[in-house]
Amino acid sequence: MKFLRYGEPGQEKPGVLDAKGQIRDLSGKVSDLAGAALDPAALAKLSTSDVESLPHVGGNPRLGACVAGTGKFICIGLNYADHAAESGMAVPPEPVIFMKATSAISGPNDDLVIPRGSEKTDWEVELGVVIGRTAKYVSEAEALDYVAGYCTVHDVSERAFQTERAGQWTKGKSCDTFGPTGPWLVTKDEVADPQNLGMWLKVNGETMQNGSTKTMVYGVAFLVSYLSQFMSLHPGDIISTGTPPGVGMGMKPPRYLKAGDVIELGIDGLGTQKQVARSDV
Amino acid sequence: MKFLRYGEPGQEKPGVLDAKGQIRDLSGKVSDLAGAALDPAALAKLSTSDVESLPHVGGNPRLGACVAGTGKFICIGLNYADHAAESGMAVPPEPVIFMKATSAISGPNDDLVIPRGSEKTDWEVELGVVIGRTAKYVSEAEALDYVAGYCTVHDVSERAFQTERAGQWTKGKSCDTFGPTGPWLVTKDEVADPQNLGMWLKVNGETMQNGSTKTMVYGVAFLVSYLSQFMSLHPGDIISTGTPPGVGMGMKPPRYLKAGDVIELGIDGLGTQKQVARSDV
Repeated sequence: MKFLRYGEPGQEKPGVLDAKGQIRDLSGKVSDLAGAALDPAALAKLSTSDVESLPHVGGNPRLGACVAGTGKFICIGLNYADHAAESGMAVPPEPVIFMKATSAISGPNDDLVIPRGSEKTDWEVELGVVIGRTAKYVSEAEALDYVAGYCTVHDVSERAFQTERAGQWTKGKSCDTFGPTGPWLVTKDEVADPQNLGMWLKVNGETMQNGSTKTMVYGVAFLVSYLSQFMSLHPGDIISTGTPPGVGMGMKPPRYLKAGDVIELGIDGLGTQKQVARSDV
Repeated sequence: MKFLRYGEPGQEKPGVLDAKGQIRDLSGKVSDLAGAALDPAALAKLSTSDVESLPHVGGNPRLGACVAGTGKFICIGLNYADHAAESGMAVPPEPVIFMKATSAISGPNDDLVIPRGSEKTDWEVELGVVIGRTAKYVSEAEALDYVAGYCTVHDVSERAFQTERAGQWTKGKSCDTFGPTGPWLVTKDEVADPQNLGMWLKVNGETMQNGSTKTMVYGVAFLVSYLSQFMSLHPGDIISTGTPPGVGMGMKPPRYLKAGDVIELGIDGLGTQKQVARSDV
């Protein structure tokens, strides 16, 4: 199933796509797509309920991020060998972890706001993994039992803030609107192999990234297990698993986003995003 | 006023200290010390209510972290010149930001759990700044208007995870129980000068850290303003402002925590914490 959240920012309701791809209102079943509602068993129960009997949502509502109650927005750095090469960095001997602020999370089609003083706002399409059950010290073999599903994440990155403004990447990863998430939380049964998903990103119609999760260095199950050795993962936590080649920083000369640019991105089966960049005023 | 949260983990109620230093139940006034309740104006209103008429809380309840709804747990690295020196690092030209996972937050006197595989769990007493109103692009002059108050934070750090396990410090900062916070959220009116607070930490009765916020490189108002240039700060966000000298990593030879160790720490006027270290089983 494809779960989603629709409505104005901060007032989103839970929804689900029906067989025709139209939105049905789930708010009679769950208060939000957060916490216990994200348990794989709870999602499976929602999936088997009669979706066609749920209220139809008319119009073309704004979509919010596809999960709520995200306590941690964990990112994996340099997790595609080709992207590490274009960034001029070595593939790390074990996963590089950094955090995006959860306040950076935005809807998949919300404006992408270029922060004041930014000259190097860059794009990164990434496979997002949504945690469904609390995970601690879990093995790689059992790791996917703790996953609610997958989504498209745009890990927007300000390269000067990230690398030229005194250590630690979080500074360039956490600006407001730097984490478009969705459109859908797609349950695991619809994703036959998370390590074989095409992914792409275009700026103003020009393809910039065109890769596959096949070339990830550390795969989803390994990452969930690995992270759970350091900290408990909780329902709603998002792991953004790194980006394939084609970011602006890696071009010669580098290219960055400017106001008016249109960014479209997507991952096979997980839906697409479209953002318009604008300056912060 | 000194606000606090008491009760079992996940079920804490808001409270306040009365004139005798005893806990009064605030749950009839606010549902929790989170969100809009942290607005300085809201806290001021609670402060002028008749605390002595609130229900007295008997016994000796567990204390939780003194704020709830923390979306970001932002830390400032190397913010005391002497600590930078003992870490063998230069004072940064602007603040170093990193994140602790919010799932690391624990009560001030909860056990400190040494994670599996850890051999270098270290201590850091820090002044915590609690945001009370959403702040974005605020000036240094107005920055403190957005602050709810101050608290003691223990920024527990696993040095091998932080620095020897492939880039980015968050990996060694985010383990469960690595963020004891409290006992109290102390409102600004009780903190005459946040840049003149003595702070200390003892392990098994031996003083390890004995410093003052006087020697911070970047002060509280500057940090709130600075961070707000990169991201919105929201009520309940905590900024942990760095640690003075005396961490275990800086000793010759280095010293780290082991099961059974008793850690006590405090900051003038902000109350004390006491943790017992234990291994994760």
